[in-house]
Amino acid sequence: MLYLVGLGLSDHEDISLKGIKVLRNVDFIYAEFFTSKLFGTNIKLIEKLTGKNIGILNRMEVEEEDVLLNKAIEHDVALLTGGDPLIATTHTNFLIETKKQGIKIEIIHGSSILSAGCGISGLQPYKFGKITSIPFPDHNFFPHSPYLTIEDNLKNNAHTLVLLDIQADKNRFMTVNQGLKYLLKVRDELINEKENFLITEENLAIGIARVGSKDLKLKAGKISELINFDFGNPLHCIAIPSKLHIVEAEYLITIAEADKSILDECL
Amino acid sequence: MLYLVGLGLSDHEDISLKGIKVLRNVDFIYAEFFTSKLFGTNIKLIEKLTGKNIGILNRMEVEEEDVLLNKAIEHDVALLTGGDPLIATTHTNFLIETKKQGIKIEIIHGSSILSAGCGISGLQPYKFGKITSIPFPDHNFFPHSPYLTIEDNLKNNAHTLVLLDIQADKNRFMTVNQGLKYLLKVRDELINEKENFLITEENLAIGIARVGSKDLKLKAGKISELINFDFGNPLHCIAIPSKLHIVEAEYLITIAEADKSILDECL
Repeated sequence: MLYLVGLGLSDHEDISLKGIKVLRNVDFIYAEFFTSKLFGTNIKLIEKLTGKNIGILNRMEVEEEDVLLNKAIEHDVALLTGGDPLIATTHTNFLIETKKQGIKIEIIHGSSILSAGCGISGLQPYKFGKITSIPFPDHNFFPHSPYLTIEDNLKNNAHTLVLLDIQADKNRFMTVNQGLKYLLKVRDELINEKENFLITEENLAIGIARVGSKDLKLKAGKISELINFDFGNPLHCIAIPSKLHIVEAEYLITIAEADKSILDECL
Repeated sequence: MLYLVGLGLSDHEDISLKGIKVLRNVDFIYAEFFTSKLFGTNIKLIEKLTGKNIGILNRMEVEEEDVLLNKAIEHDVALLTGGDPLIATTHTNFLIETKKQGIKIEIIHGSSILSAGCGISGLQPYKFGKITSIPFPDHNFFPHSPYLTIEDNLKNNAHTLVLLDIQADKNRFMTVNQGLKYLLKVRDELINEKENFLITEENLAIGIARVGSKDLKLKAGKISELINFDFGNPLHCIAIPSKLHIVEAEYLITIAEADKSILDECL
């Protein structure tokens, strides 16, 4: 049997009681930290909590070498993952593969940036459009899609939750600053192709750091203000608001240091 | 100090270790079940787990009578809520009010239908547009907005997560069947105002029941097939897919009993 267990947002105490119970009862525990990473903890603390050694798997071992499925045929095996276990496509594939191979599977959900990020931003969850994520640019790799998704959402009066790249193997975690610079660079590249740009230095954005930890940091302001603001340690994400409702504006002013002038442009 | 503690999706074991620790240390625990409800548990089990009595508050007591804030000035108080504590606007308001009154607040996140519902549907989380929720109709109250949100999402090639009404005080929890009937009834009411309807009996939908419990039920099919299908006990929700990617279609066929013909219309 295979259990996919979500560790939740921030540290080893964000796992559910159900999750801990499973981990204490299975034969083998593995973890992957390439789809997300918990900053408030380390593997030793999770091992102490479960009384078991935990094997860390890389992407190849999880996605191609079937380490988990082969083991789960005869043993009870758990795969630990940050956040909620079904947000990464890698993990929904396990539901398909276990079904095909007749292996039982159970999902232990966890708190996720998809819900907690929307919630803590103070923007109303039902007004978010498509999520996007910004990758670390690479040689010949600089997709415009994150910018375009945000623009589409703005046209539809929808907020955007912007997730930022995690390259745990290289110890690189994108900051709010890097994410905002990426968006403005896309704008610069599109300057000859488009006439109107919905995202400029003047737009309101919300930088969000370390959701789920006591060290949460929220700051709302113009992109030009946030682009050099120090949000501290990872993980970071960004919310780009569409037109604000007055309740949302009040939250941003009170909780996220936004300027009171945002009230002037409320719905 | 006020703690907002998310109970997670389904039963008393979906709370995080962090949440339990808080509950065992605070002076008073309250719970509200008007924004959501856990079906796999009851208050006695949570009281046993925490060793404390829990006061159940109604909407008036939470939103207007300031029971919690008044108590939190001098004591450590926790408010328990199903899912993630920040998804209901009621709770984000506590961040504003505690800040204004100089009361400390801490959020303990929980697993939420917003992330788990998207994940378990097998549809790719970053392809969801705006969430909508269907209310129980009432005298002179039958909003068309849920239907229109889904149509807007379909026009934007976005999936929709459809939450269904909870009237815990009346013991009413909307079923997938009621939700789908609601959508078709909106379509009927709009028949003289619009020409093209993107939602008909022929559309694919995914009925989702009891996410987070062992008794999870997923079934994908045409609305006409699902409208009389028995999904069993609450809570239910619905996902309305836009154009499917082949990986999503494979998931729905393997895990959610969808007909293989859905492969013909993949992206």
